[in-house]
Amino acid sequence: MSKEIPYKIYLEESEMPKYWYNVRADMKVKPAPLLNPETLKPMTAEELGVVFCDELVKQELDDTTREYPIPQEILDFYKMYRPSPLVRAYCLEKKLNTPAKIYYKFEGNNTSGSHKLNSAIAQAYYAKKQGLKGVTTETGAGQWGTALSMACSYFDLDCNVYMVKVSYEQKPFRREVMRTYGASVTPSPSMTTNVGRKINEEFPGTGGSLGCAISEAVESATSKEGYRYVLGSVLNQVLLHQSVIGMECKIAMDKYGIKPDMIIGCAGGGSNLGGLISPFMGEKLRGEKDYQFIAVEPASCPSLTRGKYAYDFCDTGKVCPLCKMYTLGSGFIPSSSHAGGLRYHGMNSVLSELYDQGLMEARSVEQTSVFAAAQEFARVEGILPAPESSHAIRVAIDEALKCKETGEEKTILFGLTGTGYFDLYAYAKFNDGVMGDYIPTDEELQKGFASLPDLKI
Amino acid sequence: MSKEIPYKIYLEESEMPKYWYNVRADMKVKPAPLLNPETLKPMTAEELGVVFCDELVKQELDDTTREYPIPQEILDFYKMYRPSPLVRAYCLEKKLNTPAKIYYKFEGNNTSGSHKLNSAIAQAYYAKKQGLKGVTTETGAGQWGTALSMACSYFDLDCNVYMVKVSYEQKPFRREVMRTYGASVTPSPSMTTNVGRKINEEFPGTGGSLGCAISEAVESATSKEGYRYVLGSVLNQVLLHQSVIGMECKIAMDKYGIKPDMIIGCAGGGSNLGGLISPFMGEKLRGEKDYQFIAVEPASCPSLTRGKYAYDFCDTGKVCPLCKMYTLGSGFIPSSSHAGGLRYHGMNSVLSELYDQGLMEARSVEQTSVFAAAQEFARVEGILPAPESSHAIRVAIDEALKCKETGEEKTILFGLTGTGYFDLYAYAKFNDGVMGDYIPTDEELQKGFASLPDLKI
Repeated sequence: MSKEIPYKIYLEESEMPKYWYNVRADMKVKPAPLLNPETLKPMTAEELGVVFCDELVKQELDDTTREYPIPQEILDFYKMYRPSPLVRAYCLEKKLNTPAKIYYKFEGNNTSGSHKLNSAIAQAYYAKKQGLKGVTTETGAGQWGTALSMACSYFDLDCNVYMVKVSYEQKPFRREVMRTYGASVTPSPSMTTNVGRKINEEFPGTGGSLGCAISEAVESATSKEGYRYVLGSVLNQVLLHQSVIGMECKIAMDKYGIKPDMIIGCAGGGSNLGGLISPFMGEKLRGEKDYQFIAVEPASCPSLTRGKYAYDFCDTGKVCPLCKMYTLGSGFIPSSSHAGGLRYHGMNSVLSELYDQGLMEARSVEQTSVFAAAQEFARVEGILPAPESSHAIRVAIDEALKCKETGEEKTILFGLTGTGYFDLYAYAKFNDGVMGDYIPTDEELQKGFASLPDLKI
Repeated sequence: MSKEIPYKIYLEESEMPKYWYNVRADMKVKPAPLLNPETLKPMTAEELGVVFCDELVKQELDDTTREYPIPQEILDFYKMYRPSPLVRAYCLEKKLNTPAKIYYKFEGNNTSGSHKLNSAIAQAYYAKKQGLKGVTTETGAGQWGTALSMACSYFDLDCNVYMVKVSYEQKPFRREVMRTYGASVTPSPSMTTNVGRKINEEFPGTGGSLGCAISEAVESATSKEGYRYVLGSVLNQVLLHQSVIGMECKIAMDKYGIKPDMIIGCAGGGSNLGGLISPFMGEKLRGEKDYQFIAVEPASCPSLTRGKYAYDFCDTGKVCPLCKMYTLGSGFIPSSSHAGGLRYHGMNSVLSELYDQGLMEARSVEQTSVFAAAQEFARVEGILPAPESSHAIRVAIDEALKCKETGEEKTILFGLTGTGYFDLYAYAKFNDGVMGDYIPTDEELQKGFASLPDLKI
């Protein structure tokens, strides 16, 4: 073990980050503002305050404050599962026989199984502080819903989760974790909201969709006294909370004098990637250091690599504000053969802008190669990775193998966002050799783009 | 936070235990030896060497060597997931409003989800060192099989797991984890062994049992060149490997000047409980310090609290040596309403002897009260506990509530052996209010006792 770098680097309590870093503060060209879909004017704090908690609205709109002190109550909760370990992948390096040095930041060691808890606890805290009774949200397979239910349980907040009906029925495990933490979980579309009843009438027996669940959660939040809506990705406030990942990484690497040459993260809505790269991107934006950033997305849902940079709806129900982002169109639905998350049609607006400015690269990878990387990683590093996280593993391995060819001793850092305990149907498909790959055709993408709003702006 | 004790205590690499502690060395009255069921004479190393690896046979029979240095290769593997955190349950204490100080040693932060990995890596190491091609084992729900497949993958050993057929079919997730780590998983009874074929003929369509799977695994191991059988609990060698749990605990507690008044562990075959209490029990046996030890078992499988202390078969197939232990009889089968593990009919012979000498107490708890404790714990401490571990949580909470009554500031330590991610069918039953309790009648216990061998010794 060279340079006496431990296998796992844990920060001490005294070394932990005390603030979140807002990368927008260092961007010369800021991300485009959210627009009111009716007036096409930037959303005001008042308008957003109907849906979101006041403090979160402030964070969402604030592109100038560089540092947000982390409230003590959140720091206390962090003690349960943070710091997350920064791991030197000695075993993977040995297996690949690469001169590259590989590090990963592992966010899966908490019951929600992923980094989602970082934002869930922040959003629950601000809801509690505002004196709210509870929050509503939507969830697909349940990662975000699980994280939120844990956070709400901690602050004794009511938590109502609209879960896509097909997941509610076919993937009952995360549903039960949420219920164990005291959340109410409603299959969506339900008969508890106008939009749910309407969709059930129009499409009897439908299994639902994330877009529909978002619409129900927003309607539920805005029609009940003392409730607000919360969202686990895509938003700028989420990136801010998730910056704790990158902050811990940077403190740990600085402590041991390690400078990553490239930083790799999987990208769905952008919450993990944005959080991981934020403080490093800050240095790049300020001209202090240079890094190569690589966003990895599924070939079946390629918003960065094949999407358009345009204003679009954040949800298929079109009840949310318009957001300028790399998008496949809110009408784009990834193939059902695609396993796991990273199936959002768009990308967080900060990351979209950074990508558009050429400050970050993007790659798309196919599903079977992702699971092959997951398996290879699991066998030597022990951790069973989530399919989402394995997108980053795939590219980290590819880059390490390139180093083997060239002899370069690059330092690679990637985000291992979570564990795959609830993704074993997908692993079974891979183990049985019946998993397929799917790349949408140009014609299929065109259908998605046709759903983009025609804004004339 | 009194006395500046961190929320989680992690040992540094330099503080980690360097040896396993063999509690038998400090016992004045040693546990009774294993007997050859045909000759009724103590099993020799030669006889055991047909089934087990040579080094493990030595460990199994050695009741005098106090310290076993942990091989460097195993220390290297430990770095992936050890030290496990010793957690001060501040949030649970607050919730219970108790003056008691509660600590738990959490063994679930590895992909196998439990402490089983501690012995799996040791057993795989000795198999590799002996130049074997592979190992065979049995698994019920799959916790042990998962741990062993991870360990074998690390040492590039073939791993054949006989998995109880009903679990193989109804609980496919751990099966897929094992396959992801490269193990071959065979539903038992299978057609690959004589005993399996015989059982399939006699009981067409049977879902199998752990006893049958053990018999198949032993037959498979002893009939193939270069293979041995391994077992995840009950054996003394397993207790030795698991002593790393207690060693880490003791080092961490000594470092902060904490002395537990009582130490609580769930007990099935005894692997976790034995490992947790070993070094503390050593101090008690040597007259240096006193502790209260409490083994917690399910009311539905009460080997300590209602069993007999007698020589019995370790497996229902009666192919293994005879072992003197607290037992319900190898013919005892816990009610199918019992969720999770802790369903072994007997108890490790060291723990049986300590219990018989009055050095350790035992309690049995009912299932619904265990899940209620699990839910209460999860909501405040974040971790979703395994049903097995939750037996210890139940008694820890009960004891903390007694302290609330009496005002005593007792220090309670319990073992949190693993996570409940693969036990969510049971959690669903509890959440739905349809989980039942089951206490075997005296008549049912008599049926089990009738299966005890009539040894005339």
